[in-house]
Formats: sequence, structure tokens, C-alpha cells
Amino acid sequence: MSDRDDSDPDSQAPNRNTLWARTLVSELEAAGVDAVCVAPGSRSTPLTVAFARHPDIEVFSHLDERSAAFFALGRAKRTGKPTPLVCTSGTAAANFHPAIVEATQARVPMLVLTADRPPELRDSGANQTIDQQKLYGDAVRWYADLPEPEPEGRKLRSLRTTVARAVAESNGTPPGPVHLNVPFRKPLEPVEVPGDVPENLTDEAPLGAGGRTESDGTARPFVRTAQGRPELADADLRGVRETVADADRGLLVVGPADAPTPEREALASLAEATGFPILADPLSGHRFGHDDETPVVGGYDGYLDAVGESWPDPEVVVRFGASPTSKVLRRYLESSDARQFLVDPAGGWREATFTATDLLAADPTRFAQTLAEELDGESSRSDERETWRGRFADAERDYWSLVESGRAERLFEGGVLSAVAADAPDPATVMVSNSMPVRDLDRFARPRAADVTVLGNRGASGIDGITSTGLGAGSATDDPLVLVTGDLAYYHDMNGLLAVARCGVDATIVEINNDGGGIFHMLPIEDFEPPFTEQFRTPHGLDYESTGDLYGLDFERFGDLASFRSAFRESVGSAGTQVLEVVTDAEESHRFREGLAARAAEQLE
Amino acid sequence: MSDRDDSDPDSQAPNRNTLWARTLVSELEAAGVDAVCVAPGSRSTPLTVAFARHPDIEVFSHLDERSAAFFALGRAKRTGKPTPLVCTSGTAAANFHPAIVEATQARVPMLVLTADRPPELRDSGANQTIDQQKLYGDAVRWYADLPEPEPEGRKLRSLRTTVARAVAESNGTPPGPVHLNVPFRKPLEPVEVPGDVPENLTDEAPLGAGGRTESDGTARPFVRTAQGRPELADADLRGVRETVADADRGLLVVGPADAPTPEREALASLAEATGFPILADPLSGHRFGHDDETPVVGGYDGYLDAVGESWPDPEVVVRFGASPTSKVLRRYLESSDARQFLVDPAGGWREATFTATDLLAADPTRFAQTLAEELDGESSRSDERETWRGRFADAERDYWSLVESGRAERLFEGGVLSAVAADAPDPATVMVSNSMPVRDLDRFARPRAADVTVLGNRGASGIDGITSTGLGAGSATDDPLVLVTGDLAYYHDMNGLLAVARCGVDATIVEINNDGGGIFHMLPIEDFEPPFTEQFRTPHGLDYESTGDLYGLDFERFGDLASFRSAFRESVGSAGTQVLEVVTDAEESHRFREGLAARAAEQLE
Repeated sequence: MSDRDDSDPDSQAPNRNTLWARTLVSELEAAGVDAVCVAPGSRSTPLTVAFARHPDIEVFSHLDERSAAFFALGRAKRTGKPTPLVCTSGTAAANFHPAIVEATQARVPMLVLTADRPPELRDSGANQTIDQQKLYGDAVRWYADLPEPEPEGRKLRSLRTTVARAVAESNGTPPGPVHLNVPFRKPLEPVEVPGDVPENLTDEAPLGAGGRTESDGTARPFVRTAQGRPELADADLRGVRETVADADRGLLVVGPADAPTPEREALASLAEATGFPILADPLSGHRFGHDDETPVVGGYDGYLDAVGESWPDPEVVVRFGASPTSKVLRRYLESSDARQFLVDPAGGWREATFTATDLLAADPTRFAQTLAEELDGESSRSDERETWRGRFADAERDYWSLVESGRAERLFEGGVLSAVAADAPDPATVMVSNSMPVRDLDRFARPRAADVTVLGNRGASGIDGITSTGLGAGSATDDPLVLVTGDLAYYHDMNGLLAVARCGVDATIVEINNDGGGIFHMLPIEDFEPPFTEQFRTPHGLDYESTGDLYGLDFERFGDLASFRSAFRESVGSAGTQVLEVVTDAEESHRFREGLAARAAEQLE
Repeated sequence: MSDRDDSDPDSQAPNRNTLWARTLVSELEAAGVDAVCVAPGSRSTPLTVAFARHPDIEVFSHLDERSAAFFALGRAKRTGKPTPLVCTSGTAAANFHPAIVEATQARVPMLVLTADRPPELRDSGANQTIDQQKLYGDAVRWYADLPEPEPEGRKLRSLRTTVARAVAESNGTPPGPVHLNVPFRKPLEPVEVPGDVPENLTDEAPLGAGGRTESDGTARPFVRTAQGRPELADADLRGVRETVADADRGLLVVGPADAPTPEREALASLAEATGFPILADPLSGHRFGHDDETPVVGGYDGYLDAVGESWPDPEVVVRFGASPTSKVLRRYLESSDARQFLVDPAGGWREATFTATDLLAADPTRFAQTLAEELDGESSRSDERETWRGRFADAERDYWSLVESGRAERLFEGGVLSAVAADAPDPATVMVSNSMPVRDLDRFARPRAADVTVLGNRGASGIDGITSTGLGAGSATDDPLVLVTGDLAYYHDMNGLLAVARCGVDATIVEINNDGGGIFHMLPIEDFEPPFTEQFRTPHGLDYESTGDLYGLDFERFGDLASFRSAFRESVGSAGTQVLEVVTDAEESHRFREGLAARAAEQLE
């Protein structure tokens, strides 16, 4: 038909849609994108073809858009950069919504590309045509409805600029989801349309057609964004320094954040300079990975409730990351009248105890570094601070031996999380579900120096999409991947298991099966029967062994911790994906958890 | 603690949340609601308890909110009234979005109740707290953020009014989804809170506390809505009558609508009065259920393309319902310069061929009745009209014998749909998936007098939620339920299969497995390999036999039509849910489909 080779992305495009999609994809690649999640569909054909034919972009194909979006979320959580999502027009796009909400809440970069019909078909009754404009409302950081493809210099430059901007917005402060709605009219395939793309386009519109390159020929973003980070004025920093220097008792509290916030070294310096212990949420990036010199405290959820009047209150608290997972910790912070500094680069007010006294809109790492430098470190070795730090150190020592002996006593859900945290390889990526697993990890995972990256969907704390988030995170790294989930979350995102085979992820899936919503045993609704069992606990009786058959996974079931631990250690060191199901009793686990807390309280006295 | 019995919905409520939720639920019941779909969660506890304890409301418990919403959609499609949806706060609510989009596009009543945190916790970093306000944007007909529960007369009257209004809006013209966001603060359970609900509330605020009752003591909606329907002015109707009376060649075209639109009798009268054939979409409610005297045409998709110059054009077309599924029919209507009346009660412009000449915002049934009465019926027996009608009658006769002999020749996807349509019991409810099944039903389902209700999600034409929509429809009726789906749609909503056991639905599930997206063989992308197979056809290789094990379904696989038909006939007459998998080759099916069309064209000549 012509000498244009549609399979060569550098050849002249056979039609305007191909040109448009290639341009979009090449700008994404120039902006650092190296992978995409695509759900099959017709209207998105130009994008799918352009991604599939780009030599430097890996395509993860997903059949369920909901799982696709969580996969992209997980990958972005692990890499810190967006993995774009592509879908066709219609309800496909609405299936992205749950993950988009999680991304906005948890500040995860995400870039959603929804194909759309051309404007004249909107609200016309045309097939598979819905109102996709601002489909995700306020949940996205930025939305743009792209113009119709046209092989024209200025329009192509606008496209390149928009793509560069979309990536920058998704990586902004805070990061989050961005939605580009991309209309196409037929033909959608890379078929030759004579005259559609001018032969001399590259000469007429070199920038629009070719974009920018570095002097060595590699692609350069059409517009590169330099994102500055907020830094406190000297006077503001001085105020913080004085308050911290004057305090005898202080705490550094780090809540959930996908990457350690502040960076580990900066936080360690601040702990060193202040002598304050670090209360490290399991999702903070600080529970694991610090050396043994750094005073990381992980057992607070197990004993801080029992401290009561016997310990003096903290005088100053410096908080980073999102609100801590631990209700015990939140209550502890709420009950003190300490000066509480909330450090957030985006100036977010993520503090639902309403006890913060100061919001510091500042980059956490730089803030921690600078504050550590400004403090002379003298007061960190004061007797009062030694005593204060010693309380936590003693409580930790006693608490963790209690947990470890409790783990040996009987199988309970917390013991599984305790074992997973202890046995996870170094390095490893561990994705942990909401509801009980993250709470049990919080309470029962002893801090370790190992480089274990723990992720959770703690933005909106849903149990949807957990499996896909984990597999997406795993797709981004060669670290062994561990996913700890419950039976309801496992059910909710069962479709996500298809990514094991289709996206080539190797995982160890620990599925804690207590046949329903065990968390409800912790709530007062437990006493109301009916409707407790049928409407809250909701036992489903599903035998997940058949999910192994369906998705080609090794499935094994365990009723005691020792055999689980040995299988777990084997699985994380071996190829292929294993589902290790641990059968527990939610009510008994809850009673044992309560019993341990009571024993921890006794120990403290 | 007190003599209040929290399990008796008529007792005094133990706290304000219980009172509020009971009031809401009792108004729903008064407005005609008799079932609800609930997904378990904590924040929604007051609603869940109130629904579960209401004696006249059936509760369908679902673990995946996406499937729950499609189940409610299907039930509403079959009953014409909303089945409310309840979920907790957070991403749970976003999982409703795909079904909400389908409901708005397909005009299905739906009422979404999302529990929320109290206002002060929004945007505060509180757990499981997202921005739920206007979460579904323009996809809902009406949105209200309820005030905080308070045991106060005016506030309770406002709640009752809001609930009555929400149901009315969901049943408006057109029907569609309504979203009520319902904040609660703890305690969420029906625990006694002394003094929270005044003992004398019923005396102080009898209307707010007790609502309204009929003289016989049954509940009456607090506000009853009488929804008028648009009727044409005499002059406008006269204009239509004259045009229709003057035409020699006319068509009545009925597109998708959950309930026959206009009602069957009215349409039959209009056909009788005009002598025009009825081109009946398989989702119109008119392909099946008319007696043999009514000139229902069902084969147009198979032969109308071939009519070409040999037939004269229609002069007038009267269209009801949504845009027809058949591209052949849409093209046929597009190519004629007939006067085209689009009759829509909501004045919707669902006509993406842009060939309508007149939009009649009128109730279809009354319009059809009145027009039939106004026409004297004389002209319907004119020679020209006899000839015109005869063309369709002849084409139908020839076409259907071709299809039936083709069906015997070999197994192809269209043959399965043809057989299902022929063998469905009378009465039956048949839910048919998008992509190929609905197209094959359109082309290969011969009109029958049997009362077969055919449903599809043709609003946005997604393949998500098909199983749940079918099971929801089946939950509303004792008719045998048949679900015809493809392997991708089956995968997409596999979680929906849990409703078979949990919601006690008995179905015959026909799953046509061509291992991926067979529809893409019909599109030009087929010629581009790669990425055709990996990104479009997307063979998944899943063996669905294990889904039978997982969900306790009988699973059987068929490779020939005869054994499938005999199993199908047995299944629709027996208890329990059977999955009948028919293994087909998408490409071969497509070639055979094309071959049949060629033979139909030859026949016509």
C-alpha cells in the first residue's frame, strides 16, 4: 500500500490517530515512564498499539480494569513514578475509580488515559459512550480533555506539553492521580489513510512532530518540570529548634508513607540529635531498615494504652507521614498536651485527633536534616532524655519477648504477621492488607535492620485491590514479594491473581482465612445477633484451593505456625507463586490478642 | 439496661443513629422498597441493622460492592423499582460507580446509600474517610448529603421527605440513580445511650417520629409523588397522524428498553392501525411475547444490509427506546431520507445517526395508543402497504430457515444464541452479555410468542457486572433465569457468582468460551500482529471448571450444539445453578457468520 511500516514507531505514521498516540507515548517515555497497564478495548486502539510498539515501555495487559488500576497503583507505590493506565470508553473507566481514590488519599502518582468517542457522539445515544469528562471529580489532581488528533505543529506541541504536564502534576507535591480523556474517531487501527498525515510534517513542524532530544540523541521531555520543595524560613525553623531543645521528653512519630519519610538517614540523624525515640508505623518505611543504634519503637500499639499515669507525658512531638495506623498511638497523642509539629511537604492537615499545634509545610527530609544540624546534640544526652528513652527501650525489650513467647504458645493471627515480619528476606517487599493484617503487623512486627519495604493501601483503607496492589509493587523489583491478605480481601480482588501469570510476577501470598470479617469481633456489633453473623461477619465458606487450580498457583493450607513458617521460608526463596493459607479463628485470635495486651500491661507495672 | 428492645423495630430506638436509620428504612418500605443489597462494613452499621431487622425487606448481602451494585441494577431492570445499595465509607463507594454509570445510561432506577464519617472528619486524615460528596458527579439524577442524625421533629420530617424524594427521583422521567450520603458518628451499633432519644419524642413530634399511615394502619409514604407523563398537544399529534397516514412505506423501530416500550398491546395496535412492520431489537421487549399476527421482524441485522437498491426506502419511521443494537439497522435508517420520529418520554436525544427529523417528548404507550386510535386503519390495508409488509415477511421467512439450517450445519456462536432463544422456557428471563452475545442474539434469535424477558446492559455496553446483573434480575422473579455470557465477561464478574449461594438465585449460565476477545476478529485490528493477540484478543487460558468447585455450581463443557441443547433444556427445568460452557472458535464463528450473511444476501436477490 505504501512504504510506511506501521510497526516501526520511527516511520511516518499511517494516519493521524497513530501519529497522535505515538507522540503521546514518546513524551511519556521521555518523562520517565517505562511501563503501562492496558485493558483491552477498541476505542483505545491507537494508544494500545503505540504502547505495545514502543521498544522501551513494558506493557502489562489486564482484563479487569479495577485490578489494572490497583496494579498500577502498587507499581507506583514501589517506584515513586506513575505507571499509566489505558482503557476504552464506557464503564471500563469507572472501574478505575476505587484505585484512583486510594491514589489521591495515599498520594501515589497515577496517570489515567481513558479513550473516548469524538465530541459529537457524546450524549447522543452512541454505543459505549458515557460522560467521561471529570469522571473522577475532585479525586484527581488534574484533568484535561485532549483535543481531537490533528497532524498540525501547534496541536502536537500542545499534546507534548500536556503530557509533560500530566506526568509532572502526578509527581507534584503531593503526588496523585491525573486524568487525560483522549478522544479518537475511526479509523482506530494503524491503517494507511492517504494524505491524512502530511509527508512534510517533520519539515513543517519539526518540534511538534519530533519533540526534543538531548545532544546525545536521547529523548528529552518537551517541557521538563523542576519541582521545588518547601523549606522553612529561618525564623520558623529557629522556633522549632528552641522548642525541641528545651524539651525533656519528645517523640518522633512517623506515619504511613510509601517511601521512608523523611529519608532514613535524615530521621536517624534527627533521632541522634534529639535523643527522641522514633515511633514507627509499619507502613512508614522506618519500622525496618534502621540499624540497631537508631531508637526505633514498634510495640507502642501493644503497650502504650497501659502507660497511663505511670509515665509522664511527652512535651513535644514531631510527626511525619500520614496519620498513624495505631488507634492506641493516636489516642496517646490525643491525650497529651504536647506541642505537636506536623511536618508535611504539601501542607496537608492529616490529623484527625485535632491535637496538632503547628503545621510545618516543609520537605520532611530537608527539615529533619537541617533541624538535626541546628541542634548541637548536647541535650540529647541529658539525664531526662536518657530516662525517657530508657522507658521506651525497656518497654520494647519486655514487649517483644512477650510477643515471641506468645507466638510460640498458639496459632493466632498476630503471630502470623509477627512471623512474616521476622522471616521476610532482606531485601523484600511486603504488601499488607487492611482490616486486621495491617493492625496485626503494627502490633506484632518487631523492628529489624533488614531492608523490608512494607506497603499498604492506607489512604482510604479499603480491602479492594489488595492483591493487585501487591503484584504491581512486585512487578517493579527483583526483591522477593510477600503479600499478606485476609480471606475477604483475597475474594474481593480474586481477578487480580490473573496478573501472576499474565504479568509474570512471582509472589508469596499469605492468606489468613478466618472465613469472613474477623475485624467485626473487635466492634460492639458482635453483641447483636442477628444480624452480626449474616450481615457483618459474613462467613462465605469458600474453599480457596480451587483458586490455585484456576490461576495456576501452588496452594497449601496450614493450621499451625511452625509448618507455615517453614513453608514461608521456602516459598520466598523459590520461584513461582505460592498461596499459603493459614486457617485461624477470628474470635479466638482476638481474645488471645486481648490477653497479650493485658499481659503487656502487667509487665509494664 | 432498659426495657427497650433493640431488635424490635417498633420499640423506642436505643440511640439517635438507630432512630435515624429505622426512619430512613421505614420510609423506603412505605415507598415500595422490598429488598436491599448490603455490603458489610462498620460505618454503615445503623443502616445495615435497620434493614436486617425490618420484617418486610429482604436483604441481599454481597462482599464485593461492584457486584452488589450490578445485582441491584439487574433487580431494578426486572422489577422497575430501585433496590437500594448500602456500603461503608471509603473506596467501597467508588466500587458502585460502574453500575451507576450503566444505570444512568440505561435509565434504571437505583438508590445508593453511602455511609460516611461525620463532617468534621472529612479531609482530616481520618481513617477510611474520602470525599464522598458528589462522588458520582453527573451520573446521578439527584444527590443529597444528609444532615447528622438528630431526634428532632423537623429534622426527621426532612429525612422522611428526602427519602420519599430520592425514590421518586430514581423513578422519574427518565429513571436513574440517586445518591444519598449518610453520615454517622459513634456509637454505630444499637446500644442504649441514655437520654439520646427523648422518651416523649412520639408525643412531641408525632409526624417526624411516626411518619404517616393509611386509614387501615399500613405505612403511607411521607410524601407521595404523582409523576405525570408527557402527552403531545393535539396539533402535534395531528401532524404525526397525517404524515403516517400519507406514507406508503413505514417502519416501527423499537430499541432497547427494560420493559416493553411502548407496552406490547399499544405497539401491536399501532402496527395493526398502520400496517407497518415492527423492527424489534432483542432488548426491546418486543422480539418475544407478541402473538403471531403482529408483524414482528427480527432478522433485519442478517439481511437488511443486502437490500440495497432493490427495495424502495421507507418514507416514515417511528422509533421508540434507545438506539438499536444493530449497526446494520442503524446504517439502514441513516441511509434513508425518511421522516424519522423519535418518541421519548424524557425528551432524550438518543440518536447517534443524526437522522431523526422530529423528537416527540411523549409517553410512548399513550402516544402509540392515541395514534392508533386516530388512524382509521384504512390505509393499513392499502396495496402499497401490503407489498411493503410482504417484503419483510418474505425476507423473514427465508432468513429464519437459513439460520435454522445453518445452526444444524456446525457449531458457531450465533447458533448457540439462536438455540437459547428458541429453547428458553415460557416465561423466562434471559440476561445477555455485551460484545458478541447480544449481537448474535440480535441476528440469530427468531421472534417467538413466548413471554421471554430479555435484558442486557446496553446503556454503556460494558462487559463488567454481567453475571451480577443477571442474578439480580433472577432474584426478582420465579421465571427460570438464563444468563448468556462470554468468557471475558464471565471472568470480569466472577465475584458475582457468590450471589448464587448467598442470595439463593437459581440460574442456567451459558458461557461461550472462545478464550478471549472474539469480537476483535470483527475489527480491522485483527490484521495487525503484533499486538493483536496479546493486547486485543488476549487469550487467558483459564479453565473455568474450577469456578464450579469454588462456587458450588455444576459445570459442564460442550463442543457440539446438540448435546448443549439437551443439557440446556434440562437445566432450565431443574433446580440449582448449572454453568454450561460452550467452547467455540471466535474466528471460525465470525467467518461462518459472514458466510451466512452472504447466503442471506443471495436469497434476497
